[in-house]
Amino acid sequence: MARVSQEHLDARRRQILDGAARCFARNGFHATSMQDVLAEVGLSAGAVYRYFRGKDDLIAAIAAEAFDRIRGAFEEASKTTPPPTPDVLLGAVIRVFLEERIAGADRQAFARLIIQVWAETVRDEELAKTLSGLFNGMRAAWAELVIVYRETGLLRADVPADHMARTLIAVAQGFIAQQALFGDVDVEILEDGLRGLMSMSVDPV
Amino acid sequence: MARVSQEHLDARRRQILDGAARCFARNGFHATSMQDVLAEVGLSAGAVYRYFRGKDDLIAAIAAEAFDRIRGAFEEASKTTPPPTPDVLLGAVIRVFLEERIAGADRQAFARLIIQVWAETVRDEELAKTLSGLFNGMRAAWAELVIVYRETGLLRADVPADHMARTLIAVAQGFIAQQALFGDVDVEILEDGLRGLMSMSVDPV
Repeated sequence: MARVSQEHLDARRRQILDGAARCFARNGFHATSMQDVLAEVGLSAGAVYRYFRGKDDLIAAIAAEAFDRIRGAFEEASKTTPPPTPDVLLGAVIRVFLEERIAGADRQAFARLIIQVWAETVRDEELAKTLSGLFNGMRAAWAELVIVYRETGLLRADVPADHMARTLIAVAQGFIAQQALFGDVDVEILEDGLRGLMSMSVDPV
Repeated sequence: MARVSQEHLDARRRQILDGAARCFARNGFHATSMQDVLAEVGLSAGAVYRYFRGKDDLIAAIAAEAFDRIRGAFEEASKTTPPPTPDVLLGAVIRVFLEERIAGADRQAFARLIIQVWAETVRDEELAKTLSGLFNGMRAAWAELVIVYRETGLLRADVPADHMARTLIAVAQGFIAQQALFGDVDVEILEDGLRGLMSMSVDPV
């Protein structure tokens, strides 16, 4: 019975998060009230507040979920030995991001939600701490992979792993921004671009 | 006399933009009213509305100015023959971005202002058109340079110039996001990261 009950709790939580994401994507965080969220999901205040203390809590949960998906896609794609090169790996991550419907939002709405989370983060210390923790986790995961690139001779030894990690994360963040702002990102753009960079040489004669 | 008058108009416009940028950086677009801007710059409504119709107009002007600076840094850095490789060029652009005080804001405040412009853009069609025009201009400028890379044998021929251009812009956008969110971006991080990517090979054996 406990299992069924947990499933019920999870489904309810999912329902609230999806409804909140739809509201946020439609009207933005600032113009969305908890009343709007209640109306969207068709639940009472009591039912919703059992899961989330308020809007900030919902935003943090959506941010964490987005990160989880991206992190999951990264781990899935990096499993092979030797690990895929950055163009292939980052392409796989962005493909999941663009193709999966996350929190009930399409790719455009989801990218816009992330931009809103960023804007909110610069004003909200609690959210900034959450996002910073998630970012550092992603950085460490990429850095580990960069060390493998180095050990397998794919990458020169003098590039700090963390700097490579941050640059690769920047590429992903930049394409999320482009998708949110202009709505026409395709995985091939990023794959081609990284492949182009990788085909250049550092000290041309 | 006309010249002095134009200088006066320019200085007044500058004063209003800087004051608005300070307000926006401090409290965000949504929490800032035109009254706040008037109080910050110490001018009457009549004096300010002669230059800007309202908050949206101020935001668009700040976005256009930020782009102008970035575009200027790009053009300055790309003048040499042969053109600098992407690590050097993008490093120079981000250096200007990080080191210059734009619209009276420090690097952190300025990066945060840009994130706010992005968040605003997803809700404001007029601003979206402006930003899209600026983005396409930047894309075309990078694409021209990519063609030069190709012609001088620095880049393989099969990578579409626009895809490289968008990827390089994504790197810059991603580092702006990291600066806004975590405040610890250093030009060397981006330079090392791009150099690392350029030192990898596309088809490892």
